[in-house]
Amino acid sequence: MSAFDDLLAFQRQTEALSSVAERLGWDQETVMPRGAVEQRSEEMAAMESVLHERRTDPRIGEWLDQAQAEDDEDQRILDLIARDFHRAARIPARLAMELARQTSLAQGIWADARANEAPQDFLPTLNDILMLKREEAAALADGGDLYDALLDDYEPGTTQAEIAALFDAMRPRLVALREDVLGAEYQPQALKGDFPQETQLRLARACATAYGYDWTRGRMDIAVHPFSSGRWQDSRITTRVVETDPFNCIYSTIHEVGHSSYELGIDSDYAFTPLGRGVSMGAHESQSRIYENQIGRGRAFSGWLYQRMSDAFDGLSVPDADAFYATVNRVTPGYIRTEADEVQYNLHIMLRFDLERDLIAGRLDTDDLVEAWNTRFLKDFGVAVDRPANGVLQDVHWSVGLFGYFPTYALGNVYAGCLHAALRAAVPDLDRFLAAGDAGPAVEWLRENMQRHGGLYPPRELIERATGADVSELPLLDYLEEKFGAIYRL
Amino acid sequence: MSAFDDLLAFQRQTEALSSVAERLGWDQETVMPRGAVEQRSEEMAAMESVLHERRTDPRIGEWLDQAQAEDDEDQRILDLIARDFHRAARIPARLAMELARQTSLAQGIWADARANEAPQDFLPTLNDILMLKREEAAALADGGDLYDALLDDYEPGTTQAEIAALFDAMRPRLVALREDVLGAEYQPQALKGDFPQETQLRLARACATAYGYDWTRGRMDIAVHPFSSGRWQDSRITTRVVETDPFNCIYSTIHEVGHSSYELGIDSDYAFTPLGRGVSMGAHESQSRIYENQIGRGRAFSGWLYQRMSDAFDGLSVPDADAFYATVNRVTPGYIRTEADEVQYNLHIMLRFDLERDLIAGRLDTDDLVEAWNTRFLKDFGVAVDRPANGVLQDVHWSVGLFGYFPTYALGNVYAGCLHAALRAAVPDLDRFLAAGDAGPAVEWLRENMQRHGGLYPPRELIERATGADVSELPLLDYLEEKFGAIYRL
Repeated sequence: MSAFDDLLAFQRQTEALSSVAERLGWDQETVMPRGAVEQRSEEMAAMESVLHERRTDPRIGEWLDQAQAEDDEDQRILDLIARDFHRAARIPARLAMELARQTSLAQGIWADARANEAPQDFLPTLNDILMLKREEAAALADGGDLYDALLDDYEPGTTQAEIAALFDAMRPRLVALREDVLGAEYQPQALKGDFPQETQLRLARACATAYGYDWTRGRMDIAVHPFSSGRWQDSRITTRVVETDPFNCIYSTIHEVGHSSYELGIDSDYAFTPLGRGVSMGAHESQSRIYENQIGRGRAFSGWLYQRMSDAFDGLSVPDADAFYATVNRVTPGYIRTEADEVQYNLHIMLRFDLERDLIAGRLDTDDLVEAWNTRFLKDFGVAVDRPANGVLQDVHWSVGLFGYFPTYALGNVYAGCLHAALRAAVPDLDRFLAAGDAGPAVEWLRENMQRHGGLYPPRELIERATGADVSELPLLDYLEEKFGAIYRL
Repeated sequence: MSAFDDLLAFQRQTEALSSVAERLGWDQETVMPRGAVEQRSEEMAAMESVLHERRTDPRIGEWLDQAQAEDDEDQRILDLIARDFHRAARIPARLAMELARQTSLAQGIWADARANEAPQDFLPTLNDILMLKREEAAALADGGDLYDALLDDYEPGTTQAEIAALFDAMRPRLVALREDVLGAEYQPQALKGDFPQETQLRLARACATAYGYDWTRGRMDIAVHPFSSGRWQDSRITTRVVETDPFNCIYSTIHEVGHSSYELGIDSDYAFTPLGRGVSMGAHESQSRIYENQIGRGRAFSGWLYQRMSDAFDGLSVPDADAFYATVNRVTPGYIRTEADEVQYNLHIMLRFDLERDLIAGRLDTDDLVEAWNTRFLKDFGVAVDRPANGVLQDVHWSVGLFGYFPTYALGNVYAGCLHAALRAAVPDLDRFLAAGDAGPAVEWLRENMQRHGGLYPPRELIERATGADVSELPLLDYLEEKFGAIYRL
């Protein structure tokens, strides 16, 4: 066995163990008895300990020194392993353990503080985590920018300067579009009615099938916060049901099908290697967004959905497929990121991006975070935050140490805009299929041009290879203006 | 930290990882997408590799040399860790891997051979496994008896000589009872009808609840072959549904509740230590058997069940609770161990015990196994085996290397007989509760006198402490003769 083979055999087992750890997380959120919380936390900690030991195993350094790549694919595998190894090696074991311990505790403290509308109960904990993350960032940055070092975990190769420039370019057109839309004379109706759980789930399954979700390699369960989990031969989705709002279930499902499809679409030869997973959070989100928004909330697919829902619920409160299309794309003022429409979503991200950059840079103290959030929200959205659960306490991310994660959602939207433009050019009659409830040709194009490559290319290169053009915010902005201009009759 | 503390901290993580591996098995049999088989096999192999490395970690030997026990409980923990360590150390890594690989493959080959009624497709594989098990037994036995070395994995401290003596004592009375019962004038009716899945599952849940199954630390799913899985805060049961035979679902459920109750009933201080699990397969089976048979198929509980089933299915084909009691205890000739009644079950075990002892000792070749099985079955049961799936191919055990496991089922029955006699003496008004669908007082007695101790005492000592008497086959035989004598009006 060569050093390369030894390294890959070792990595293969690490990948398998990491997949097991992820499966435990799925189990916890879907089927685990509620009395098993402490036990599961000890099981997860044991898995993390094994994984940490493997990721920092000094033999990896020796194999990397000796391994020879025979082609670009092998070289990329070596680069990805080296990247993870050097990142892991830079973080002292004490810090890694302390971060794992604190973030595990903080999640519960955050949830209680949110339920009690009591940010003061959470902010000291958040400060502890922030200090640990700054320490981690300093260890990783090695003299460079702290925020960039964290961002690199989620969107390798991207910098905050690039993202700031992108967001600066997006903001004026998004703000103007929102103003026009909210001030328009025509306002779409909300959907009214009562929508039984079983029917919603049946429809959600039909939607997943419409996108070619492979039920022999996946399944759907209910979770409080929908997520997708797993890869290769087993990527599962979850959804939730709100009996007054069927779109919650349906579009959550389609979103998660996007994530799972990406994992299931990766070349099976890459399984158990670092190429065998989505290359970045932004790339991942591009798939969930294009499935959910550009395709799922488009006129053609929503027309099919209108018919299916009318049949399933024995009539709907909106009169026809055009009105329904407007309804699924309705823009309303709101506090919550996860409930935001396509027009306003990225503005929610920009707020978080700026605040977390200030926190990491030490320009903002957690003591001043509530005020900073509320001031900024009023400025950006023209509405005062009414209560902490609708403001700074709404997202779990910071409590679990996810600083640098938020901008990847907006990057995903930008990538989705680029991919959608290229997809439409490549498959001009796509709407004909979508109108019949068949997203197959869209999925096939995405699979062929993007998903199958897994981790082979860095994120930006991946999108540029797929689209044949530079990554740019323009396709997304053009799409939004055209779509919402038409819906709101601007 | 003392050597004892270091050893226990290490063991704690091993126990947590072993619990994760078991959870993967549960996932595979209940919720895993069917396309994930190869991936799961690689994940399981990775977990096994980590566990094997930990179980043979040389530091365990050093810690054991230095560790001081402060009381009997600590000493028992050290003894159990030492026992597993020395067993694991005696088996060469090559042999352990080869056994894991072969048995994993053999299970599929066995299933295909059974489906095709083709023992010749399976016997060469079985021979490979037998040779490996003999090699393993020789490594473990260290000059002692091969079969005893294997048996020790499932029922520590018991020998084949003891079991053979026990079986010799049981056989004449069991054979005589079977003869009387099958020849009796009165024969109970079979239950006829169609029993919808959802109603069966609702009844099964009600039965589990009647035994105090803790739903906050468990759940019930459907599996092809019912099993229970997990411990401490999370022990799950599975069941199956045959729409023409509701007893299959109901009594499988109660049986698995017995196994899970044992695990959930262990003192929570023992979690993540070697004391935190049932002490042997025989001890385990004693719980599932007493839940299922002595309690579940008793007159009082079956009277309650009769009423519940009559209500749920809107009438039953048997006229009253007495007839129903006879129906759930119906004795009929049959080939299949898992479908056998209380009278004949142990005779099925005796056949397997003798054949597998001959295989391990080299007195019987796999080439001659079919003939040996069929000859013995005709002798013991008076009926010729009609096809291999009803004969030598019916059980999965040998294909996965479980030689020495079968006798623990019969030992479980013997233990259950002892426990039941003591329970009845301790709780004279038990039937009053059982008749109302409340097995609580029985479960409490078993928990207090047996379950909570986990691995603290060796199996035989555990039963003798609980019952205040030597382990003996007599309570079981007396119980069977009395019960079936009454039912069959002998």
